[in-house]
Amino acid sequence: MLRLPKLAKNNSINLIRTMSSTQPLLNTRIESDAFGEIEVDTSKYYGAQTARSKMNFKIGGEAAKMPIPIVRAFGVLKKSAAIVNEEFGALDPKLSKAIQQAATEVAEGKLDDHFPLVVFQTGSGTQSNMNANEVISNRAIEILGGELGSKKPVHPNDHCNMSQSSNDTFPTVMHIAAVTEIKNHLLPELTKLRDSLDAKAEEFKDIIKIGRTHLQDATPLTLGQEFSGYTQQLTNGIERIEKTLPNLLYLAQGGTAVGTGLNTRKGWDVKVADQVSKLTGFPFKTAPNKFEALAAHDAIVEASGALNTVAVSLFKIANDIRYLGSGPRCGYGELALPENEPGSSIMPGKVNPTQNEALTMVAAQVFGNHSAITFAGASGQFELNVFKPVMISNLLSSIRLIADGSDSFRRNCVDGIVANEAAITKTLHESLMLVTALNPKIGYDAASKTAKNAHKKGLTLKESALELGVLNEEEFDEWVRPEKMIGPKD
Amino acid sequence: MLRLPKLAKNNSINLIRTMSSTQPLLNTRIESDAFGEIEVDTSKYYGAQTARSKMNFKIGGEAAKMPIPIVRAFGVLKKSAAIVNEEFGALDPKLSKAIQQAATEVAEGKLDDHFPLVVFQTGSGTQSNMNANEVISNRAIEILGGELGSKKPVHPNDHCNMSQSSNDTFPTVMHIAAVTEIKNHLLPELTKLRDSLDAKAEEFKDIIKIGRTHLQDATPLTLGQEFSGYTQQLTNGIERIEKTLPNLLYLAQGGTAVGTGLNTRKGWDVKVADQVSKLTGFPFKTAPNKFEALAAHDAIVEASGALNTVAVSLFKIANDIRYLGSGPRCGYGELALPENEPGSSIMPGKVNPTQNEALTMVAAQVFGNHSAITFAGASGQFELNVFKPVMISNLLSSIRLIADGSDSFRRNCVDGIVANEAAITKTLHESLMLVTALNPKIGYDAASKTAKNAHKKGLTLKESALELGVLNEEEFDEWVRPEKMIGPKD
Amino acid sequence: MLRLPKLAKNNSINLIRTMSSTQPLLNTRIESDAFGEIEVDTSKYYGAQTARSKMNFKIGGEAAKMPIPIVRAFGVLKKSAAIVNEEFGALDPKLSKAIQQAATEVAEGKLDDHFPLVVFQTGSGTQSNMNANEVISNRAIEILGGELGSKKPVHPNDHCNMSQSSNDTFPTVMHIAAVTEIKNHLLPELTKLRDSLDAKAEEFKDIIKIGRTHLQDATPLTLGQEFSGYTQQLTNGIERIEKTLPNLLYLAQGGTAVGTGLNTRKGWDVKVADQVSKLTGFPFKTAPNKFEALAAHDAIVEASGALNTVAVSLFKIANDIRYLGSGPRCGYGELALPENEPGSSIMPGKVNPTQNEALTMVAAQVFGNHSAITFAGASGQFELNVFKPVMISNLLSSIRLIADGSDSFRRNCVDGIVANEAAITKTLHESLMLVTALNPKIGYDAASKTAKNAHKKGLTLKESALELGVLNEEEFDEWVRPEKMIGPKD
Amino acid sequence: MLRLPKLAKNNSINLIRTMSSTQPLLNTRIESDAFGEIEVDTSKYYGAQTARSKMNFKIGGEAAKMPIPIVRAFGVLKKSAAIVNEEFGALDPKLSKAIQQAATEVAEGKLDDHFPLVVFQTGSGTQSNMNANEVISNRAIEILGGELGSKKPVHPNDHCNMSQSSNDTFPTVMHIAAVTEIKNHLLPELTKLRDSLDAKAEEFKDIIKIGRTHLQDATPLTLGQEFSGYTQQLTNGIERIEKTLPNLLYLAQGGTAVGTGLNTRKGWDVKVADQVSKLTGFPFKTAPNKFEALAAHDAIVEASGALNTVAVSLFKIANDIRYLGSGPRCGYGELALPENEPGSSIMPGKVNPTQNEALTMVAAQVFGNHSAITFAGASGQFELNVFKPVMISNLLSSIRLIADGSDSFRRNCVDGIVANEAAITKTLHESLMLVTALNPKIGYDAASKTAKNAHKKGLTLKESALELGVLNEEEFDEWVRPEKMIGPKD
Repeated sequence: MLRLPKLAKNNSINLIRTMSSTQPLLNTRIESDAFGEIEVDTSKYYGAQTARSKMNFKIGGEAAKMPIPIVRAFGVLKKSAAIVNEEFGALDPKLSKAIQQAATEVAEGKLDDHFPLVVFQTGSGTQSNMNANEVISNRAIEILGGELGSKKPVHPNDHCNMSQSSNDTFPTVMHIAAVTEIKNHLLPELTKLRDSLDAKAEEFKDIIKIGRTHLQDATPLTLGQEFSGYTQQLTNGIERIEKTLPNLLYLAQGGTAVGTGLNTRKGWDVKVADQVSKLTGFPFKTAPNKFEALAAHDAIVEASGALNTVAVSLFKIANDIRYLGSGPRCGYGELALPENEPGSSIMPGKVNPTQNEALTMVAAQVFGNHSAITFAGASGQFELNVFKPVMISNLLSSIRLIADGSDSFRRNCVDGIVANEAAITKTLHESLMLVTALNPKIGYDAASKTAKNAHKKGLTLKESALELGVLNEEEFDEWVRPEKMIGPKD
Repeated sequence: MLRLPKLAKNNSINLIRTMSSTQPLLNTRIESDAFGEIEVDTSKYYGAQTARSKMNFKIGGEAAKMPIPIVRAFGVLKKSAAIVNEEFGALDPKLSKAIQQAATEVAEGKLDDHFPLVVFQTGSGTQSNMNANEVISNRAIEILGGELGSKKPVHPNDHCNMSQSSNDTFPTVMHIAAVTEIKNHLLPELTKLRDSLDAKAEEFKDIIKIGRTHLQDATPLTLGQEFSGYTQQLTNGIERIEKTLPNLLYLAQGGTAVGTGLNTRKGWDVKVADQVSKLTGFPFKTAPNKFEALAAHDAIVEASGALNTVAVSLFKIANDIRYLGSGPRCGYGELALPENEPGSSIMPGKVNPTQNEALTMVAAQVFGNHSAITFAGASGQFELNVFKPVMISNLLSSIRLIADGSDSFRRNCVDGIVANEAAITKTLHESLMLVTALNPKIGYDAASKTAKNAHKKGLTLKESALELGVLNEEEFDEWVRPEKMIGPKD
Repeated sequence: MLRLPKLAKNNSINLIRTMSSTQPLLNTRIESDAFGEIEVDTSKYYGAQTARSKMNFKIGGEAAKMPIPIVRAFGVLKKSAAIVNEEFGALDPKLSKAIQQAATEVAEGKLDDHFPLVVFQTGSGTQSNMNANEVISNRAIEILGGELGSKKPVHPNDHCNMSQSSNDTFPTVMHIAAVTEIKNHLLPELTKLRDSLDAKAEEFKDIIKIGRTHLQDATPLTLGQEFSGYTQQLTNGIERIEKTLPNLLYLAQGGTAVGTGLNTRKGWDVKVADQVSKLTGFPFKTAPNKFEALAAHDAIVEASGALNTVAVSLFKIANDIRYLGSGPRCGYGELALPENEPGSSIMPGKVNPTQNEALTMVAAQVFGNHSAITFAGASGQFELNVFKPVMISNLLSSIRLIADGSDSFRRNCVDGIVANEAAITKTLHESLMLVTALNPKIGYDAASKTAKNAHKKGLTLKESALELGVLNEEEFDEWVRPEKMIGPKD
Repeated sequence: MLRLPKLAKNNSINLIRTMSSTQPLLNTRIESDAFGEIEVDTSKYYGAQTARSKMNFKIGGEAAKMPIPIVRAFGVLKKSAAIVNEEFGALDPKLSKAIQQAATEVAEGKLDDHFPLVVFQTGSGTQSNMNANEVISNRAIEILGGELGSKKPVHPNDHCNMSQSSNDTFPTVMHIAAVTEIKNHLLPELTKLRDSLDAKAEEFKDIIKIGRTHLQDATPLTLGQEFSGYTQQLTNGIERIEKTLPNLLYLAQGGTAVGTGLNTRKGWDVKVADQVSKLTGFPFKTAPNKFEALAAHDAIVEASGALNTVAVSLFKIANDIRYLGSGPRCGYGELALPENEPGSSIMPGKVNPTQNEALTMVAAQVFGNHSAITFAGASGQFELNVFKPVMISNLLSSIRLIADGSDSFRRNCVDGIVANEAAITKTLHESLMLVTALNPKIGYDAASKTAKNAHKKGLTLKESALELGVLNEEEFDEWVRPEKMIGPKD
């Protein structure tokens, strides 16, 4: 007995129709695939499979569109494949040149509008791969003076997808896009933010302030020391991301359908990786095991893990800074954050820490993206993980949000932070914790009595000490010196 | 000592400039806020605070834009507030009418293009509230024949934001948007999917198949029973979502800045909620405690928890169905899923379960969104949670993805599923597990021997039983009847 | 061709050995199952399958043991099943009575030590079900004067597991345990915590304090209003948990192996649910669809979602309170939290908010547990979800941690919180935000000038107003009254 | 006005009482701290602060106890500190020797029973640090012939905690414990599992099987190739974990209360790290920035991220293997997994993939642990992260579960996997996908017709080809050879 599935119904009759439709749309051409013919808007280069995907996957709208860095990476990959296919004598040089020109336009972002598909499609990204093949083939046909939709002389499958399968192209563009965004945007922005925090650590190196543990007053440190912790977090964060690059630099290309490399030639994979490296400037290599490279995307999970850690750091930093800037009268008030927009039309000095809010929201989103990636990464089956688009869209979201968020936070907050030195100093000297310095001078018991008396009566330490007669003013001023409490003894 | 923050630098000189700029843009007008003047594109209704937010929060691009349902909900809210303010005698009827007309246009989606801001802005959503105030005021000014940017006769703060604060309007639109999307899109789509699965359960009610536990062959059930489990999951899921509506139907409006309702009149909150109910058709009520309504968004976390559970159900359903449809030759092969696009140009019958893949990716995304919401929900401080935009954008994403995903899965997969009855029956009868039925007839030992012999020699149960001579063919056919094994005995 | 798996090696030779071992352990008896004989410690009631599971699943140690509430619930269930089996005439009354007595001992916790297995075992919980069957059968044998390990006259499978399968017993005990812990521990403790917070809200109802939004000084509210928000969160949280009970009250029992109820009698499921209700006092019902009840545990995911929301609330509450108690000199200092242990041997008044820390750590753990449950809940296959033990152990962990954490936080923190009224009042009057009250009296411009002057020169509002001559002292004292700012106007 | 907090009530009167109690417990001694005296069980070495923590933090019971590796690491640290303090001349050699002896006993696990505290305590782990100080001081007192509880001649704070603060000791033991468990247990077990999978890849290298993408039949590969992907995943996973070690090898010790190193001497931090390295054999170093080391635990989040990725890999591997072993008759049936316990008393060959179930449950737990760690890691404040115990308990849980789970899975599953070669070969040849090989011989159209005909009529490819007369039997057998399809062409 044979299975005879019913045809799925669809409600898209007015937008995209099969040829049996009696009323043709204006300005359409006919494109076709193994399922038959379909009308396509003449202003677009894409073909039947893209049109069909638009029809079958109406999920999520604009916000769910396949990220642009994936589109661009397809340009890089298809150009590389054409070059290598020509080199192997498999692709006619004339066609190759046209494909290369069209692919270059995709890589440069000139054809972004021709990539309308969403993330929630086939889990292998097949339809986005075909979208790239269709756009490049039609554009190449146009370059060569042919007719769009004719698949002649440049066929989307036979030529643009030559020696390739969606199963290896999509993971390849995942890695190209991730490395490119990390190297071109994320690492530069994190580095600039780290440097800005470091500059503040240097600027604030002589400002002694109260330390806080468990949110309670503790022994002092310098504001510069406090910021140096943030700097260290980002220095480590940058290294954490860099440590994920070696695995992202491995390309699945050459595995074709199941990882065996069927329909490629020996060495094809290495040459393609070299070509991609040449075009991008990043040292991509062919993956040592293509079965792993198609069936699992642990490298994406790993990279997301590093971003998750960086988001943890950014959350801490942005949160601390907004608390230190809380006030102006009824909070910690140690920092003045830049005013970038009206906080309130009534109260001067109401500076809302809006950049900190944006950055901590970024962190929350990155945590969520990481959960999605983890779940998707674990759910591959046999020779293929079919959560590819959702994995890479979350990773690219995290990369962009951290990059943009760091840039915005640096420009609009960190670089403009001013220490409220008067407030810092006042608070420091009100603290009872400085009593620690008296232990070796007047003994633990007298020191303790001094602090307790101050706490009970609301006195300063000095007032309390003088009231109790345990030392004189001169002694107090000489002995109680926060600047001696900010490092180990010689 | 006074704090004198440095001005934040910005790199947006070519797009939006302060008035000190010497080369004015073409087609701009001057808008102003407490920070000064700013040039704005004349084709837009928004004003200075929106422009400033665009400049200060370049985070995430198109994919990070504030969701449209929030924009529309602002239309509903601002109209409601104008009506009530007029009712209380606080707002001039003429201005009120103009505001209502402008707000109606926002609610109806006519002014979507005038809302350019992203999610990663002030954590209270202040700038989106001001975006709404600015657009409505300028549009109302236009209606009344005034000059855009003049704030006369309709002022964005004094009139459009009258009796309101971002701190209560933004949580209010969060709830309006969530309820509207749940009621108008999510619940109908889930219900249709449930009904489709239920129809399949009915269609398949007489097809007896092998059961599988631990992925291993087990006792039989009907395919209809199997699908009835999916139906039950969605029936429960719909109820789970409905149970979250009462808390989402509470509106924060009337709490103003910190929950006390300063600058409102007694009863204003109740009247606004009534007005919103009238406009939307949903029974909104004023929140019983406004402090909770501003400082915590537990209702959003709760709703996300319900969506998370529904995503768990959808993952299970979509995953089962794709495994049952695996093959065509080398898998379970019990179901034939509709072919919607070319699976492979070579192999007929290669139907990739692309809709299942899209739906399981949707589930993974919903799990991630829920993690982001959980983190953000826990991180409120004192009188305000400042993760509002990231919370609602993730919730609306989950709502839309489940709604769209359910629709797509139903149309393009479930409705077209066909049972491969021949394969199901063949597999059922090959199973050794039916031996269970022989226990009461020939005794456990002989039954066990029969099964073991079949397993060892690769025989069917009947062949094995006949070979061992424990019964005759007639007896086997009478006793081993799967249809007797699919329910409790009377 | 037949598959002939190699025997798995194991390293447990010294603890539990097969009979071929030449050196018998002292004090062991022989137990057997379908796999053969095995020596078991004579001081334990469990049998061969439990011993084999101990040997094969050495994962996680003590911390990973199957939670005790599951063990107790097995006692309840096995007793109920024996009663109903006797009622149906399937089980000899003498054996039934002995089973009931043994099962009662399990339910009462007298035999906890005989349940040594860990969570990370068979995903259906089969081995824990057999652990219960073995312990009850041996104990019943003992009661009836038989020989342990003989399986006579009470057989673990034939009698203790009569009409049951692990596939329906384990989900049944999951629900019994969850409902019992929620009703007996979680809801009472949350209610007590809510009531304590409510008492504080009442106690603090006349203490006016500065409000804080974006961590910045805002308009005032009472400390009681602030606490009322917490109360509302917990009131809602209790309702959220209660809303999950109806689905938890459905029992899978009667579905047996795949949900069809094979080997039970019609009505058996209903009677067992009634019996469990009678024994526990909770209104359990038989699940309307047993296929769903075995193959999915959405009810557990749903319940975990409610706990996740409650943890979000508790995090906010505990976090606010520790910040409000920060200081004593260099923090917000509005609350004094009870001192329960030495904070520091040097500094009096260093009260670390240790209970808040414990409760926020509880919340973090609940978030993690929820992620684990979500993943596991989505990963069921066909007729069975095989992540049952990890789901219920995480749910019971969350229940217990929130219950214990709420109890500890209430006793050791909330009940002892004291408002630092002097500090609160001082801060309130230092705030510049009270200027809002002058708008209607002296106009926005003069009010704004007053506030800006105060901010610039570090003056109080009153000092600034008098210096600028915009009003006199009497007027200021009459007009600037925070107690008029804590609610809507009439 | 001074704050006078109410004393917290507690309900532990029968277990641990203050001295005002009239009925002393038998066998107790008096211990004291800054809060006064308390009775302690004489059989325990711990003192007042431990007893007080037991009383104040009754949260979570046995399953929530501080992990043993932390206890042992305290032994290592306290011994190291005593050695260095003696070296600096700060600690009397006699006392130092006694402390070293006692600490060695802690490190060796001889005093585990004296560490009763739970994870949900002070967020800095202060009470566990004091637990270590108290146990070591009392044991050292005993060694020196003194009276327990007298604090003479060895004081828990003055001597055992000399130059230390909980704030630097607890993060130090977190790192010592994590590195020790990773190096001693996790990496060896993962390596053994990798090697076992690699051995299977080698064993199965000549078994050609059908590939599956999207769960649908695809082009062939060898079973060895399929397993090689798993091997690669674990090879990468081991490297991922190793990459986290450099940051875990940094010790916070020497930062004392806030990171400044107050109360230490220059170089003390370096010497302690050297001493810990000597005792453990792992190359610990002092952290380059102690502010970061106390206030953030990004290194723990990073390590958890690596474990999360490894869990993703293990989930994929265990899941694939159980599906490949599904059957015996009605599943994929390509692998025979070892039988370790009765699957069913009725059906021979019902081998439940119980080890796979345990391992996938482990993975789910690790995902949850990672979420908890992420949340906790982001939530540090100013100079201290107060989620230390919950972070390390989740990390150690993940480490142990993966180590134990890998061991169990390897021994009880992987090593015993047998390929069902007959089934694999039969399935392979039933596949229609081999038609791909005919494209270059008979042309795409004839090949496609052949496959479609086979699909429609339920024929094998060969039967179909012969029926259509597109080739003869000899040609078919020569051309359709899966062994030519498992790699790129030369």
